[in-house]
Amino acid sequence: MTQKEPHIVVLGAGFGGLEFCKHFHDPTARITLVDRTNHHLFQPLLYQVATAGLSAPDIAQPIRSILSDRTNVTVLLDTVRDFNLAERKVMLEENTLSYDYLVLALGGCTSYFGHPEWEPFAPGLKSLGDALHIRSRILLAFEKAETEPPPDMHERLMTIVVVGGGPTGVELAGACAELARHVLKKDFRRIDPGQAHVILLEGTPRILSNLPPELSASAQRQLEQLGVQVRTNTKVKNITEGRVDLENGETIRAANILWAAGVSATPLTKKLGVPLDRAGRVQVNPDLSLPGHPEVFAVGDMALVLGADGKPVPGVSPAAMQMARHAAGIIENELAFRGATKRPAFKYWDKGTMATIGRSAAVAKIGRFEFSGWLAWLAWLVVHLIFLVGFRNKVAVLFQWFYSYITYKRGARIIAGPEESEPC
Amino acid sequence: MTQKEPHIVVLGAGFGGLEFCKHFHDPTARITLVDRTNHHLFQPLLYQVATAGLSAPDIAQPIRSILSDRTNVTVLLDTVRDFNLAERKVMLEENTLSYDYLVLALGGCTSYFGHPEWEPFAPGLKSLGDALHIRSRILLAFEKAETEPPPDMHERLMTIVVVGGGPTGVELAGACAELARHVLKKDFRRIDPGQAHVILLEGTPRILSNLPPELSASAQRQLEQLGVQVRTNTKVKNITEGRVDLENGETIRAANILWAAGVSATPLTKKLGVPLDRAGRVQVNPDLSLPGHPEVFAVGDMALVLGADGKPVPGVSPAAMQMARHAAGIIENELAFRGATKRPAFKYWDKGTMATIGRSAAVAKIGRFEFSGWLAWLAWLVVHLIFLVGFRNKVAVLFQWFYSYITYKRGARIIAGPEESEPC
Repeated sequence: MTQKEPHIVVLGAGFGGLEFCKHFHDPTARITLVDRTNHHLFQPLLYQVATAGLSAPDIAQPIRSILSDRTNVTVLLDTVRDFNLAERKVMLEENTLSYDYLVLALGGCTSYFGHPEWEPFAPGLKSLGDALHIRSRILLAFEKAETEPPPDMHERLMTIVVVGGGPTGVELAGACAELARHVLKKDFRRIDPGQAHVILLEGTPRILSNLPPELSASAQRQLEQLGVQVRTNTKVKNITEGRVDLENGETIRAANILWAAGVSATPLTKKLGVPLDRAGRVQVNPDLSLPGHPEVFAVGDMALVLGADGKPVPGVSPAAMQMARHAAGIIENELAFRGATKRPAFKYWDKGTMATIGRSAAVAKIGRFEFSGWLAWLAWLVVHLIFLVGFRNKVAVLFQWFYSYITYKRGARIIAGPEESEPC
Repeated sequence: MTQKEPHIVVLGAGFGGLEFCKHFHDPTARITLVDRTNHHLFQPLLYQVATAGLSAPDIAQPIRSILSDRTNVTVLLDTVRDFNLAERKVMLEENTLSYDYLVLALGGCTSYFGHPEWEPFAPGLKSLGDALHIRSRILLAFEKAETEPPPDMHERLMTIVVVGGGPTGVELAGACAELARHVLKKDFRRIDPGQAHVILLEGTPRILSNLPPELSASAQRQLEQLGVQVRTNTKVKNITEGRVDLENGETIRAANILWAAGVSATPLTKKLGVPLDRAGRVQVNPDLSLPGHPEVFAVGDMALVLGADGKPVPGVSPAAMQMARHAAGIIENELAFRGATKRPAFKYWDKGTMATIGRSAAVAKIGRFEFSGWLAWLAWLVVHLIFLVGFRNKVAVLFQWFYSYITYKRGARIIAGPEESEPC
């Protein structure tokens, strides 16, 4: 490759980074896409891997095979270490890349609101590794309850606390309740998983606070019908091994504490030397470029952009994909016209919000329309199947859902990995 | 439960232990089935999980859900620690179980012929954890070759050595060659996975030595057509990190060294205090009971039984299942007649042997009939689908195979777990 051709470095192969590569069509430019994993992860379904509904490969696609026919795209499995924006360089673990344009799409990570010490006791759900770890922990707790003689341990082993009443927390809590009360119910002899407690803790007055109050109320009703104990206005004071201390002085003991309360931008944004908000997001210009660096764009969860309503654009996949297409358009345009042109400001188109709770149970707001229950659930299924990357995955997931809906079973109730292997 | 009803403890939920529970019908007896994992693993397809063709849950089923409607069976996830045959007790990690009958079905594990120090450098393939670990290692090596500047490292990173030319070794080598030469081929820019080396090392004069010589030769031809370098009469002297030293003084450097050379019985047999063979197998009576312990049976890979031909019955799943049914029949009979009756001797019915090499490539011997190539491959597919436990898994695996056959892609090319998660 000649050094003449412009080089675009894209960091992160999530919804933003991948969308950029798919929608950047100028073949004269060379793209290097860097991710620390070998797969694009469909995060909206990650909670179903954590609750034994889907297997990891069902919601992940090798980045290379997605972009296999894009010969001007090179994919590197590598980890970003630092930036030198002045010299237009990115330092990776194995490589150092020089760029003409840089697209930052590194996403976010679980935030413990200044309590990183809680992480080992209350895992978050960001990667496939997290999901498989949580799946093993939940399944092992019920197995342990069946083998443990002392009944006083049973309640603790059969209690799952989910911290945070956003979409992820709601979906996790609903899926955990279904797992215990329907899927595991008949499979144990000494314990009754139907007696399991699933407790959803939300610090504010209502769950799904990004939705209208009536939908929040509906979601809470649907969760309670599944047997989830929803506790709003309930703040966490401290978390230790198997124990949650609330600000009201109460203590909950639970073998599984899942953290779905906070997301912040990747800590790498601190190395950019540009203004960040409290969540560590980059305060980008209206065109999504970095202040003082028109050749650097930030998209997705790590970018702070204000929408038409003056509120920050939410950290959801449609927003990341829209930002990526916006940046791609600007760069294509400048390459075509050999230099800076007038750059349009990014406009976010809110396609709506959905959260699923369980079988035939969900809430959705699409434009002016608000649904809940079966119709919202169906809409949720269709939208997620459409956006799931890869034909194989679409078919596999559709089959899993159909199978689970009919049989009340889950296809991935497997404890694999270190937990499983005894020295032999 | 009253102490009156006879208690049968079954250790291990592999082919033997599970078959025993399925075929023991006396409802007056209480069965406790113990396994250290929560799933029954279909080991014949484990190599496809290791080579990214299938996902872990496709070949594993929760033991509890398989036996969900067998209310007299209690399943415990626990680990066997020791035996007290005199007092008819089994000591587990969490429990101690008293039994009237004990069925040992603990299987085997990878044996390094007195070189346990080789294990970290040449992982074996026994559990789902092993398979996922090997999958990650193989995929990571190619990723590393793409990012590593020094080309002298490429050959090492793109070399896979499989030690042992038995069915597992042959299937692993064939699947690795297909993975590199067909599946990964178009997805890299800096390296050509088509140049990958897959080397199969066999110490004896021919691979698949349990099959007739002409089938061994055919298997070798089919492997070589796939690009596998088959080296017979080649003994390993030493294995260290990324390096295999052969007895002929030669050294092979390979990022991935897979061990498929030896299987021995579980080390737990040493704690039984009965005669063992060199592979640690229990030398059982013709009725499969332990010498001096008519109430204890050993079945499957941990039992040494001589077939009609005077040779030991091979450690294959049909043998384990036949032994399990034999033991179940004897126990049912004795319970029905309240005491010892004449016990028949176990007779092994050899259903044949098969090994698959790649798409449309396999060898099979069924009775007097010997096949190779497409027909053997089709027979292999059908047999494995029929015996795979669980409707969901049958459909999922059939779909995966169909998908891979049509697209030359693999559905589980995912590096998940610790390798993936960066501290965030």
